[in-house]
Amino acid sequence: MNKRKIAVVITARPSYSRVKTVLSAIQLHPNLELQLIVAASALLDRYGSAVNYIVKDGFEIAAKVFNVLEGENLTAAAKTTGIGILELSTVFDNLKPDVVVTVADRFETMATAIAASYMNIPLAHIQGGEVTGNIDEKVRHAITKLADYHFVASESAKERVVKLGENPEFVFNTGCPSIDLAKEVKENSDSLPFNPYEKYGGVGATPDLSNGYLVVMQHPVTNEYQDSRKHIEATLEAVYQLNRPTLWFWPNVDAGADGTSTGIRAFREQHQLPNVHFFKNMEGKDFLHLLHHADCLIGNSSVGIRESAYLGVPVVNIGTRQNRRDRGSNVVDATYDVQAIKNAIEERISSSKQISNVYGGGDAGKQIAELLEQLPLQFHKTIMY
Amino acid sequence: MNKRKIAVVITARPSYSRVKTVLSAIQLHPNLELQLIVAASALLDRYGSAVNYIVKDGFEIAAKVFNVLEGENLTAAAKTTGIGILELSTVFDNLKPDVVVTVADRFETMATAIAASYMNIPLAHIQGGEVTGNIDEKVRHAITKLADYHFVASESAKERVVKLGENPEFVFNTGCPSIDLAKEVKENSDSLPFNPYEKYGGVGATPDLSNGYLVVMQHPVTNEYQDSRKHIEATLEAVYQLNRPTLWFWPNVDAGADGTSTGIRAFREQHQLPNVHFFKNMEGKDFLHLLHHADCLIGNSSVGIRESAYLGVPVVNIGTRQNRRDRGSNVVDATYDVQAIKNAIEERISSSKQISNVYGGGDAGKQIAELLEQLPLQFHKTIMY
Amino acid sequence: MNKRKIAVVITARPSYSRVKTVLSAIQLHPNLELQLIVAASALLDRYGSAVNYIVKDGFEIAAKVFNVLEGENLTAAAKTTGIGILELSTVFDNLKPDVVVTVADRFETMATAIAASYMNIPLAHIQGGEVTGNIDEKVRHAITKLADYHFVASESAKERVVKLGENPEFVFNTGCPSIDLAKEVKENSDSLPFNPYEKYGGVGATPDLSNGYLVVMQHPVTNEYQDSRKHIEATLEAVYQLNRPTLWFWPNVDAGADGTSTGIRAFREQHQLPNVHFFKNMEGKDFLHLLHHADCLIGNSSVGIRESAYLGVPVVNIGTRQNRRDRGSNVVDATYDVQAIKNAIEERISSSKQISNVYGGGDAGKQIAELLEQLPLQFHKTIMY
Amino acid sequence: MNKRKIAVVITARPSYSRVKTVLSAIQLHPNLELQLIVAASALLDRYGSAVNYIVKDGFEIAAKVFNVLEGENLTAAAKTTGIGILELSTVFDNLKPDVVVTVADRFETMATAIAASYMNIPLAHIQGGEVTGNIDEKVRHAITKLADYHFVASESAKERVVKLGENPEFVFNTGCPSIDLAKEVKENSDSLPFNPYEKYGGVGATPDLSNGYLVVMQHPVTNEYQDSRKHIEATLEAVYQLNRPTLWFWPNVDAGADGTSTGIRAFREQHQLPNVHFFKNMEGKDFLHLLHHADCLIGNSSVGIRESAYLGVPVVNIGTRQNRRDRGSNVVDATYDVQAIKNAIEERISSSKQISNVYGGGDAGKQIAELLEQLPLQFHKTIMY
Repeated sequence: MNKRKIAVVITARPSYSRVKTVLSAIQLHPNLELQLIVAASALLDRYGSAVNYIVKDGFEIAAKVFNVLEGENLTAAAKTTGIGILELSTVFDNLKPDVVVTVADRFETMATAIAASYMNIPLAHIQGGEVTGNIDEKVRHAITKLADYHFVASESAKERVVKLGENPEFVFNTGCPSIDLAKEVKENSDSLPFNPYEKYGGVGATPDLSNGYLVVMQHPVTNEYQDSRKHIEATLEAVYQLNRPTLWFWPNVDAGADGTSTGIRAFREQHQLPNVHFFKNMEGKDFLHLLHHADCLIGNSSVGIRESAYLGVPVVNIGTRQNRRDRGSNVVDATYDVQAIKNAIEERISSSKQISNVYGGGDAGKQIAELLEQLPLQFHKTIMY
Repeated sequence: MNKRKIAVVITARPSYSRVKTVLSAIQLHPNLELQLIVAASALLDRYGSAVNYIVKDGFEIAAKVFNVLEGENLTAAAKTTGIGILELSTVFDNLKPDVVVTVADRFETMATAIAASYMNIPLAHIQGGEVTGNIDEKVRHAITKLADYHFVASESAKERVVKLGENPEFVFNTGCPSIDLAKEVKENSDSLPFNPYEKYGGVGATPDLSNGYLVVMQHPVTNEYQDSRKHIEATLEAVYQLNRPTLWFWPNVDAGADGTSTGIRAFREQHQLPNVHFFKNMEGKDFLHLLHHADCLIGNSSVGIRESAYLGVPVVNIGTRQNRRDRGSNVVDATYDVQAIKNAIEERISSSKQISNVYGGGDAGKQIAELLEQLPLQFHKTIMY
Repeated sequence: MNKRKIAVVITARPSYSRVKTVLSAIQLHPNLELQLIVAASALLDRYGSAVNYIVKDGFEIAAKVFNVLEGENLTAAAKTTGIGILELSTVFDNLKPDVVVTVADRFETMATAIAASYMNIPLAHIQGGEVTGNIDEKVRHAITKLADYHFVASESAKERVVKLGENPEFVFNTGCPSIDLAKEVKENSDSLPFNPYEKYGGVGATPDLSNGYLVVMQHPVTNEYQDSRKHIEATLEAVYQLNRPTLWFWPNVDAGADGTSTGIRAFREQHQLPNVHFFKNMEGKDFLHLLHHADCLIGNSSVGIRESAYLGVPVVNIGTRQNRRDRGSNVVDATYDVQAIKNAIEERISSSKQISNVYGGGDAGKQIAELLEQLPLQFHKTIMY
Repeated sequence: MNKRKIAVVITARPSYSRVKTVLSAIQLHPNLELQLIVAASALLDRYGSAVNYIVKDGFEIAAKVFNVLEGENLTAAAKTTGIGILELSTVFDNLKPDVVVTVADRFETMATAIAASYMNIPLAHIQGGEVTGNIDEKVRHAITKLADYHFVASESAKERVVKLGENPEFVFNTGCPSIDLAKEVKENSDSLPFNPYEKYGGVGATPDLSNGYLVVMQHPVTNEYQDSRKHIEATLEAVYQLNRPTLWFWPNVDAGADGTSTGIRAFREQHQLPNVHFFKNMEGKDFLHLLHHADCLIGNSSVGIRESAYLGVPVVNIGTRQNRRDRGSNVVDATYDVQAIKNAIEERISSSKQISNVYGGGDAGKQIAELLEQLPLQFHKTIMY
């Protein structure tokens, strides 16, 4: 019997972390062949070169797709997607996958979805059915309508995909694959197993982490483009005033990324930050170790909603980016306001750990690989109502 | 007060016919400025040069977008869409519309939807919420998820869009604008007001039409690509055997178009067809006159489901292309089978006219223009559940 | 030792015919590996599907590149070239050729030249140094300036490439590979070895060819776009008036192709042509047989200048397309004038055969393969003066 | 009389500086209309945002073209050019210029040349006929072969363009427009008229400039991609050892840019540089003032060859980038070797000013505008031999 060829398209560093266990499970499955395609910002230095981690983790790359068009505007996001379609359709034509897998909701994942569905290749979507509240929201549900199989991360996401008219037979709550990694970390992490400054370099102060520390990760919000600098400044000011040991991660690419990055750079030039260190990126697993031992995660990353639930890390979630997503009781929300952020951080630091399985129990990768082997190959569907 | 700039993107001849009254209503509206963009097959000779009719009808064209990539395969459809995004994002950047309007469900309309939504321009979609059953189905509902306003053509379409999680405040059953034209034709058509052979040329026999005639319009079905030739041959054989005066229209562009076209060409070379005339295209209004006086429409065109309902024309609908669309009692369905098609045609010819308002009452264009003036400008939405 | 990988990009039917013996010689060479890339109009039905002949001739295709953008305008030629660069750079990235070979002067060959030279892949150019007199002229010499090796077809071409500042060490007069085929045909052709009507179908009359016949092949001239219809009409009228057995070949793709095609179609509808048969395309070898036995070749094809010299076929060369190219004494020139064309044809028919080796002696393919194996790999050059 | 529409495409900061006086002269000319198109890295923050200076200088921008594809490889340069053709052909279609002007030899200027020439728009090329010695060399002469008018900067460049087969009637030695600015600066610069640290920020030390200073500007050399880091390190080390007041400018975009940039960043982290300040960019005029008062210019920028000749600034030219370009006696060359660079700098600092008019006398902009008004509009040419 021929192995089923499963093409997975990774377009950004966080997406890679999220589905790493899916990739491993496909690779290990005797009846599946992994065709890993690395595209967009996952290939670029400026955004953390996910590709280096992918290679280091031992995955073979079937094709690289450079499609990020530079430009400080929203037009570039549209054009990046258009170029992505041109390039990915060639790749699919060469690799002839049996199934294409796309992840989550970043704008450029639409290129994967369109190329596959227009070429009559069955399309699987990981992490449909969630709610965000910006352009990602439109993208995510549009991809659901293009996809043939849905591997969702929670019960409420499953309900939502079914409400969208998808056939329940092809909607599966596997839990989120990111929890698979969190499980592994939790089971093997009595203390931080590496020195982050030595291993990842970065810039800024190198505060002592042994008495606890904050982690900050805040991305721009696409359709509040012009506000992204103001938003990051509120967080910067709050962290500056608290003056606790802090590990800060640069945002990933988006229209508006430069607003956020510029904000950070300018703030650093104007202020002494004796307790703050900045990282460009970190391997997913190491980041989870860091998170597991953190006093609090601050920002708007989905890791605060997702892995942090399973790990029980206290989280201050800022702004609208994670609106209406399922969350455990480990999370409190704050507006883009210095005092609100400070208060929330202080409240969280003084609380006890609260753990939740809302995003699954740690075997999503294995479940998804099993389904990819068993599901009937099909690219034709009709809305259920 | 500045007029609202409404960009409408027309990508194919049938889409133009369908929204012509919307264009007129926008153009006539004192507070709206029409920015008409003609793209894809609407510009090309091979597909009936909709652009010539557009110019002749007196519309000014704000931009032309050539984005059809030649190639007898599905990859070309994907690439055409990618190029469309590249080109349309430039056009939108130049024209700076307040709202972009996209029509129906052709694959390349996705380029309009992505360019507009990624650039934070409010997107209006005409004819969402209907059911087709091929790649168009995926496209249509995906566009619904990208769109901010929905102008649907029937009550069941409205219900479906709302079920898809759209805010009912922005879903409007305006009826189908194609009915606006049908209404006008019906009110002014005692007999066929022109000689189709003289006015439109074409090839083949020129049968006498005064004692009734059949009209055939059958398009390939995208994801049954290799079958398209076989499908058209069944219809050709049935029409050949019936040997009645017949007016046959070439299919519009699609992956697979060449299967259908080749089938027709080959059949013509092998058979005498003394009662069949072939047209490449016809102005929408003239086509409706022709339809209004026809004994029966045969094929899989949406005109059989839609305008024919209002006009009460008997219709034999072949195959799956119009599956699950609302239809009046004027329609019977047939499979891709010579005898089934023959029987259905004969049954229809002998029946009485049956009229239905399921797709509206003839004022859709005006309603849509009114809404485009009044609706709040927004490009941010969240799923309703 | 690893074989050198030689990527040859074929973008049109005539280019394929021209370099077929080069492809064979590369394929047969023990130290070379052929990577054949078929692109642009060579893939399309409308332009004679060179790809079918390529497959039939037993060549394996390493990659197909669809890059023809439809559109009846010059912008489409530019965009086709842009898409070609996007696609070919991906192909080269995958195939990692040691040398890229591009042929002649068609506008889209610039895509091959740019992708290869920008990616630091040594570029070989076949048929540089000739003179045409339209956009091809600009393209041909620009490619010379991008290329690292030059395989030219005549002594005067060699001189011209050297004058253009190229290093004479890398300029080789191999003769034209098209002559290799002509040689083979000449040595094996006592009479026409096939019935062209049976083998190639086509449309129109089927005149008896046993007492001689004319062959017509006339392409549009790019930068006289609007005149292409008028030009073809002069030729049509001349051939119509002569009323001899005539085999007419459709033009290949170009901006303006539709002017020529439309002209032919319209003329056929308005005139009876009892002695003219139209072919869409023909295998190169069969065409040479046909030519070898023809009374006269009419039009502006380079075959009139090139293979016809070696075969000694009388030629009426119309218009400016072959201006300033080397020619044997078998050629007379005519303007786009009915009477001039008629007179020239009559003069030619009554002349004796005149043979010339100006374009080589029939071993170009083998010479080029040898050079591709031996030349030092380099992509860096400096003008010689 | 209608004004002639002159489209000038600016793709990078240095190109803008170079042709600024041409833009002014076109704008001021009563019979010309300037259509200024800003593209590629000229739009991007990372490469100094030439666009901001353009706006500040009072030029109106007719269109912006974002076409830089991110990627640390040569494929991205090819794709950037392909996207450039797609975008510029749309822009030209909209603006309908009478003449398109392209500048110098950067890889992406080929997109301008192809779009214009394929669309039958007369193409003028500024700075043809010079010799560089990398991919720019291929690009420059290829553009000469696509261009219809040539505005060259020196007598030897003129001779070279004529040798390339261009019609001498359309080759004009106007001198280099960059000299126009140098002339203005020279006539108005007794001392440095601004404080560069205050006006341009930047990072690093702020050495006292009143007793003389060095200026460094070194770009990567495209086809020595992997060496670009090693090259920059030799210069860094030499400057570090000399320890004189130094103003260092970041390189502009190129494949390999990241090698150079990374080299600088790494060196700064490992060394104290108490006398070196780094600038991202500077207005052309201010840079010339800076240069005029500098003890020595170091690196491989063409400004060392060109403006420095007229100003008489001592120059140490490193490596191959300016090979075979005309130079005045103010220049000495050095290899990529620390000691060689140091020696050359010391020798230069101790020499006297040497002035040359090899690149013109300061009225190039005006001459070019005059020619653009008077030259016959033509896009058809034939090689002269």
